Amino acid sequence: MKQIQAYGTEDKNAKLKPLTIERRELLENDVDIDILFCGVCHSDIHSAHNDWGGTKYPLVPGHEIVGRVTKVGNAVKKYKEGDLVGVGCMVDSCQDCNSCAEDLEQYCENGMVGTYNGKDKHTGKQTFGGYSTSIVVKEEFVLSIPENLEIKAVAPLLCAGITSFSPLNHWKIKKGDKVGVIGLGGLGHMGIKFAHAMGAETIMITTSPNKAESAKDLGADSVLISTNGEDMTKQNGTFDFLLNTVPVKHDINPYIQLLKRDATMVLVGAIEPLEPMNGGQLILGRKRVAGSLIGGIKETQEMLDFCGKHNIVSDIEMIDMQEINTAFERVTSNDVKYRFVIDMKSLK
Amino acid sequence: MKQIQAYGTEDKNAKLKPLTIERRELLENDVDIDILFCGVCHSDIHSAHNDWGGTKYPLVPGHEIVGRVTKVGNAVKKYKEGDLVGVGCMVDSCQDCNSCAEDLEQYCENGMVGTYNGKDKHTGKQTFGGYSTSIVVKEEFVLSIPENLEIKAVAPLLCAGITSFSPLNHWKIKKGDKVGVIGLGGLGHMGIKFAHAMGAETIMITTSPNKAESAKDLGADSVLISTNGEDMTKQNGTFDFLLNTVPVKHDINPYIQLLKRDATMVLVGAIEPLEPMNGGQLILGRKRVAGSLIGGIKETQEMLDFCGKHNIVSDIEMIDMQEINTAFERVTSNDVKYRFVIDMKSLK
Repeated sequence: MKQIQAYGTEDKNAKLKPLTIERRELLENDVDIDILFCGVCHSDIHSAHNDWGGTKYPLVPGHEIVGRVTKVGNAVKKYKEGDLVGVGCMVDSCQDCNSCAEDLEQYCENGMVGTYNGKDKHTGKQTFGGYSTSIVVKEEFVLSIPENLEIKAVAPLLCAGITSFSPLNHWKIKKGDKVGVIGLGGLGHMGIKFAHAMGAETIMITTSPNKAESAKDLGADSVLISTNGEDMTKQNGTFDFLLNTVPVKHDINPYIQLLKRDATMVLVGAIEPLEPMNGGQLILGRKRVAGSLIGGIKETQEMLDFCGKHNIVSDIEMIDMQEINTAFERVTSNDVKYRFVIDMKSLK
Repeated sequence: MKQIQAYGTEDKNAKLKPLTIERRELLENDVDIDILFCGVCHSDIHSAHNDWGGTKYPLVPGHEIVGRVTKVGNAVKKYKEGDLVGVGCMVDSCQDCNSCAEDLEQYCENGMVGTYNGKDKHTGKQTFGGYSTSIVVKEEFVLSIPENLEIKAVAPLLCAGITSFSPLNHWKIKKGDKVGVIGLGGLGHMGIKFAHAMGAETIMITTSPNKAESAKDLGADSVLISTNGEDMTKQNGTFDFLLNTVPVKHDINPYIQLLKRDATMVLVGAIEPLEPMNGGQLILGRKRVAGSLIGGIKETQEMLDFCGKHNIVSDIEMIDMQEINTAFERVTSNDVKYRFVIDMKSLK
């Protein structure tokens, strides 16, 4: 085991602080990555506070990682020292079940290994995330980052990016489709960029009129204020697809009304019980509500390549590692456009 | 207008009684049908009692109609006197919108015309249903009934049949799929017959252990009692498709858990707000919940032809028209296996 510097927490009520952690030595299929930047995802906060249960302490969050390869194991073929690489929400999976065979490791039937708070398959110990100076990851779970992109703004693509890209890609959004992106946060702002780049007529759907201009700057063709009943009614039955990024309990019925017959709304944020859905809403137009979880490794690479081609990155605010507790507070109060990224040299 | 004998109600609290109603004269595209049998659908009861609002009185229910053609308009090509025909839930639509162009008149963007309590496009007056001696329907909304089937047991196919057939057909259920049919009533018993005939491994999912044998007689390979947590848990993540025929508010979360990744549950019964759905259930397996409403005319004909080929009809209990009020009570208390059919000669 090797000792490295990190930032984490030893208690659900404590603030994050410097920690020394142990990580596994380089195995033959491993890539050793010097972490340059790490995005701050709302999940990091939920995990630190054990909001979802299951957190083991000490916890080192961070699953939007960008760095440079410093060393590779003997059997590694895809990467070499100096390569710009990324790591997202997963660092391992069984690679044997139906889901893994279909490049959908996020749905691994034996459970994927989370980048943090997971169980390392080799050491049996806890995995630690990107709020640290380095990380060792199995080659198959390392992504290649297009060099033309602004590196620090790539970090959030590894979670916020793929989470919004995957449903748009899976449900085959194409030129001319009318796509609504519900909620303008870390996921929603990426959803707008992707839907726009895919050629869709992209409509930002938000409760906040003051987000209208920002949404248009990101690529939205127009903005629909969901609290305006009259405007909503006018748009009923007109959307080919809805990407719902709202991360908390809410009423999805007004959004289902926006869908055309046979159209789909995909939830990517709300992992809790929603307000009661009216079955008739689905029945009367053969509509669908579905879910989507991040994306597989293959699709994450496709997303990064798509970003390289279309010059898409996240809109970010840079912080030093020592500012993480303030950043957590600001994320919680929705005060960030749209993602904090930690400059990891502040920890070195 | 022509006067005919029917059974209906003039008030939401009144029992059904004999009524004389007016229907339109035969137009050039119309088919005049002598009604032989009419199924009793739960919707008939809801409409009679104005449970959903919008009922105009007098109301003559009935949209599971089988009869013989007695006369056709000059322009009618498909039917001639003596043909055995059926009429389902619709008697007209705009035949011009996208939905109608795709043979999905049930989703007509300008509103399909219900077989009863609709607005006749020619007379502007109310439409009356199959609890009557005859009906005049536009050729395009008349179905052809395979002569090899037991005629009286065909009637429920026109609503219960197509409502359960359409989602199985639309979502392309095939040999080897594992299909669960939730709820054993008018819709559910047809769902089992269809899923079985399509070659699926068909599992009846019910709260009632005493329905197990009946379900197997209908073609279910096995029965899963949804109140048995242990049995349900064993089957989590194993179903390719679920047809949910439960007609009232209920908790769909335990059923979503039964679905495989990327699998769909289709609601056909509950047109009201459901118990809160957990968004995480959909997200963690990219699962889908959808709705489905009856079926288009083309698909209804396909369903009838499928029934002709596989010798499928409904399980019924025959009544005379005069017994309708008792039948309504028994349907309401779920005391019928599985559909009442009125022998319309009792009214003649």
